[in-house]
Amino acid sequence: MSSYYLQDERFLPKEEVRISPDDRGYYFGDGFYEVFRVYNGKLYEPEAHFARLTRTSEGIRIPLPYGIEELHAKLKELIALNSLSEGTVYLQITRGSAPRAQPFPAPARPFLHAYTKPLERPLAAMEAGIRAATVEDIRWLRCDYKTLNLLGNVLAKQQALDAGAEEAILHRSGSVTECSASNVMIVKDGIIVTHPADNLILHGVTRAVVLRLARAAELSVEERPFTVEELREADEAFITGTTVEITPVVSVDGRTIGSGSAGPVTRRLQRDFAASIGQ
Amino acid sequence: MSSYYLQDERFLPKEEVRISPDDRGYYFGDGFYEVFRVYNGKLYEPEAHFARLTRTSEGIRIPLPYGIEELHAKLKELIALNSLSEGTVYLQITRGSAPRAQPFPAPARPFLHAYTKPLERPLAAMEAGIRAATVEDIRWLRCDYKTLNLLGNVLAKQQALDAGAEEAILHRSGSVTECSASNVMIVKDGIIVTHPADNLILHGVTRAVVLRLARAAELSVEERPFTVEELREADEAFITGTTVEITPVVSVDGRTIGSGSAGPVTRRLQRDFAASIGQ
Repeated sequence: MSSYYLQDERFLPKEEVRISPDDRGYYFGDGFYEVFRVYNGKLYEPEAHFARLTRTSEGIRIPLPYGIEELHAKLKELIALNSLSEGTVYLQITRGSAPRAQPFPAPARPFLHAYTKPLERPLAAMEAGIRAATVEDIRWLRCDYKTLNLLGNVLAKQQALDAGAEEAILHRSGSVTECSASNVMIVKDGIIVTHPADNLILHGVTRAVVLRLARAAELSVEERPFTVEELREADEAFITGTTVEITPVVSVDGRTIGSGSAGPVTRRLQRDFAASIGQ
Repeated sequence: MSSYYLQDERFLPKEEVRISPDDRGYYFGDGFYEVFRVYNGKLYEPEAHFARLTRTSEGIRIPLPYGIEELHAKLKELIALNSLSEGTVYLQITRGSAPRAQPFPAPARPFLHAYTKPLERPLAAMEAGIRAATVEDIRWLRCDYKTLNLLGNVLAKQQALDAGAEEAILHRSGSVTECSASNVMIVKDGIIVTHPADNLILHGVTRAVVLRLARAAELSVEERPFTVEELREADEAFITGTTVEITPVVSVDGRTIGSGSAGPVTRRLQRDFAASIGQ
């Protein structure tokens, strides 16, 4: 069964998708994206994703090719066309096609494409937890923009895999920022600690949901940088993200975190998150 | 007249080039490139470009799809096919096509493409000089790898254009690194100063040629970081690059540098460079 892509404003089968070699996304990484979660055939937290899309659009000065309302309707149509129940929608917008030169091209029209992917919730990893490895964060200083310049993330992720872990926890000179494809939080003496939403991390939609759930549960939250040492000494650690939801980190660089399995705060947040998505 | 592309090992007209939406270059900027100068139908300093290509290949762990010798032969063939006399060859290699996920894909084959572009030497700018604007350097910490993650360069370039300049001179907290698409050197009291070839700048082929010419001419050279303040107070400043060659910088942020036109050291190096390419 072929699945449909959204290309600009049209729907077409994947086989008919054509990317130009002159697309600035292809030679400059000159574009941005969002990954939306779909539960029960519905976009999860669409407003938060569209707000971030708009923020990146303004930050890197690539206008949206059409309005959010129309885009939202198009993505719903794509989900319906592909009969997606549980999965993700990947949406990417580049600055358009033009002969290769750094200045913004005058006549180029931003190029949008989107597709869906069926995906189950990661229940096994959420139960058992994952191993993480620390990796120096050498990325640029606008990690809050969700852009296509992801080579630093890719290299960090692979370095973690090579070390026998599943995720890379990034740090700048010992100060933990986030992971290669998720945010990270620790729990110490009942307090949840996570890096503030500044220019050094992606402002995760799930990160914001988790902090909201934590505050609703009257758990203490501190948004401040923490060190690799604090991570190692934490009672609990977990990552948050659109596809990983809330996944415990049970070891870092081969050393067990806390009890070596998901702690009570992590479990509480997982339950509250599941309830929030109707599970 | 259609021009030919090299795609993997085949030559084909541009119209037939097909980029997959699953190409990791397109959604992660997961690839690298070179821009070769062609003078008189011949690749200029090919060994230096191939050495840098190999170095980036190793650094970001994308193997070359085939050997340098064969690649060199293919580029020569491409130049001949397109009857290119004066211009550039753009060569790009990505990690290949695979469903979107950060880990290196197991079965993907690196994807290579290359094309040519006719281009005159920038004689007018080399004579009159250009205006530059300083822009904070927020890029990642491996600018020595020539990768497709160029959004930081693109945004800096556009910021300079918006300020009425032609090139962005980047600095990290006041310490000058390089430009958005070239290296930069200053001359003070007869000494040429330029940032060392470390992880913060691209190791420009023309930069190396110019330093070689300077030393051959018994000019003093210091490879050390210099400040924006030193740049403003310089007797001369110029940029170096594959397409800009040696182009004087006559003003920075609206303030005149030195006499406001190319100085004697810049002129000397331009003459020696022209001689080295048989002009």
